[in-house]
Amino acid sequence: MKTISSFPFPEKMSALMLTEYNVNPELQQVDVPRPEKDEVLIKIDSSPVNPSDNSFIKGTYSTKKTLPVIPGFEASGTVVATGDDFMSKRLLGKSVSCFAPHDGNGTWAEFMVTKNKTVIPLKKGFDIEQGSMLLVNPLSVIAMLEIAKKGGHKAIANTAAASSLGQMLNSLCIERNLQIVNIVRRDEQVELLKSQGAKHVVNSSSENYIDDLSAVCSELEVTLAFDAIAGPMATELLEALPAGAEVMVYGGLSEQPVSVNPQKLIFEKKNLSGFWLSEWITHQPMLKMLFTFNKIQKYLSEKHQTTIHKRVSLEDAVEGISLYLEKMSAGKVLVKPWLK
Amino acid sequence: MKTISSFPFPEKMSALMLTEYNVNPELQQVDVPRPEKDEVLIKIDSSPVNPSDNSFIKGTYSTKKTLPVIPGFEASGTVVATGDDFMSKRLLGKSVSCFAPHDGNGTWAEFMVTKNKTVIPLKKGFDIEQGSMLLVNPLSVIAMLEIAKKGGHKAIANTAAASSLGQMLNSLCIERNLQIVNIVRRDEQVELLKSQGAKHVVNSSSENYIDDLSAVCSELEVTLAFDAIAGPMATELLEALPAGAEVMVYGGLSEQPVSVNPQKLIFEKKNLSGFWLSEWITHQPMLKMLFTFNKIQKYLSEKHQTTIHKRVSLEDAVEGISLYLEKMSAGKVLVKPWLK
Repeated sequence: MKTISSFPFPEKMSALMLTEYNVNPELQQVDVPRPEKDEVLIKIDSSPVNPSDNSFIKGTYSTKKTLPVIPGFEASGTVVATGDDFMSKRLLGKSVSCFAPHDGNGTWAEFMVTKNKTVIPLKKGFDIEQGSMLLVNPLSVIAMLEIAKKGGHKAIANTAAASSLGQMLNSLCIERNLQIVNIVRRDEQVELLKSQGAKHVVNSSSENYIDDLSAVCSELEVTLAFDAIAGPMATELLEALPAGAEVMVYGGLSEQPVSVNPQKLIFEKKNLSGFWLSEWITHQPMLKMLFTFNKIQKYLSEKHQTTIHKRVSLEDAVEGISLYLEKMSAGKVLVKPWLK
Repeated sequence: MKTISSFPFPEKMSALMLTEYNVNPELQQVDVPRPEKDEVLIKIDSSPVNPSDNSFIKGTYSTKKTLPVIPGFEASGTVVATGDDFMSKRLLGKSVSCFAPHDGNGTWAEFMVTKNKTVIPLKKGFDIEQGSMLLVNPLSVIAMLEIAKKGGHKAIANTAAASSLGQMLNSLCIERNLQIVNIVRRDEQVELLKSQGAKHVVNSSSENYIDDLSAVCSELEVTLAFDAIAGPMATELLEALPAGAEVMVYGGLSEQPVSVNPQKLIFEKKNLSGFWLSEWITHQPMLKMLFTFNKIQKYLSEKHQTTIHKRVSLEDAVEGISLYLEKMSAGKVLVKPWLK
């Protein structure tokens, strides 16, 4: 194991520990893990609360890890120790963005060990807090744009459009001249997105929602809609979109099933499918991904900063989840393990 | 107009007339229609009751025609008069299989006028009753096999598998060495399909249905299921099939929506879509269709006769619909306008 010179390897660390699904994780003192070959030890700076963290803790996410386990999927931090192999040692001392290992402890702790291949060095001067949100949202947005392009869609729609992901998607669509219909649920979110250059924003709480949505989707020929909510939102989308359209669900924030009228499938050739970043990534060539991360960092540092709504300590992380889910459009909640 | 020599053009005919959707059509005396250029007048022999007839009368089918209108989508009969153009005159006196016009009166009458291009001459000696079922079911089955082949599916499943369409699909899958899981709802239907060579039949009324279905679908790697029923049947199919599978709904016999768990879409990459023959046909080259109809007639006359459950007069057609829907596996109900 190599360590950076200024780092006296500690024995214990604070971590949030999930001991049972659907029960809040608790703060514990645990051993600091040691990196093996092809692994790095990261001193965590920030880790955003994502909807997937909420599902994971509730036990409704696709992956269930062996319990007890530390939650948290993505973060930023500094590589303070590494295994003895070349690729890991190259990362020593660097500021990085990182994914938690597929099985094993996650990012909601003072330190985390993960494979060197799930770590991306941050460009010089890149904000370390923004760097904690470099993976899930930007990659999802890039995947969505690729899916839209590949499918030859002239225009798309997105729900929960005032979320960080939604704002980023809107912003990149404007840059790439892809028409997007942003669906939000409050008037101030309409204003927010319009202030960011959005041409088409519909409010699902308004009286004329379905009519407005149908009208703008027909006009722009929206044939692909991304949906983070599922339940009645996805059902209404399927109804409102023109014939031949696809609704691609990427989140289940409503925690409700989607009810589909078979006539929409048969006679209007509509289609309900899903998108999962972790699955999408497995089909992407490594080189393309590296190139993509460079582009993302450039874009994010120059044009798009994710708003940070609140920074919380490990102790307050669970409260942070509720805070985030209640008002996603206010910005991201960051878990900061060294914040006391 | 040309007529066959033995045909004294009549003034009036009996026809079932639909005057309001969701109200039973009634027997009326109406004028016999005269064929224009590129049209033919067919003396109807037989017209099968299809699930689409039921939806059409209820007003839930995709196409709504201008009322009042004669229902019925496909039939067989003899061309007794034609327009003056070459293509129509070639059909004079011939036994044919035919589709009703897109807009305008259908097959549940003593005579029907339709475009010459929606008429297929029957091969010499081909049974005229079987000829009335030459289009909807055989073409649907051929489309399904094409979709399965194009999508690279190793094995498929089908619901309502004891229906005429289901039996035909099973039979053609066996001939083409495509594995099929037949889903039925009664023990005698399991026996029926097994007697027709089916290897895999599951009974949705049995206690172990979901387990049995999951097991056989995993074993055979069923990644495409056709579903005629919608509602809970399609929901269960989506649950039981392995990851990456598609459920393609082609009928809504349950008259219920499909409830979809978003996790199945996102994490298991499952997909809910639809199939509609009328839409599929529009993408097929005419020459391929002619070739296909020849193959169908050869296949049907040599290997697969559709069972006829009952022949009913126009007066009893509405009763015939209920009779058919209650027990589709007993065979087709034919409307015979000249049966008194």
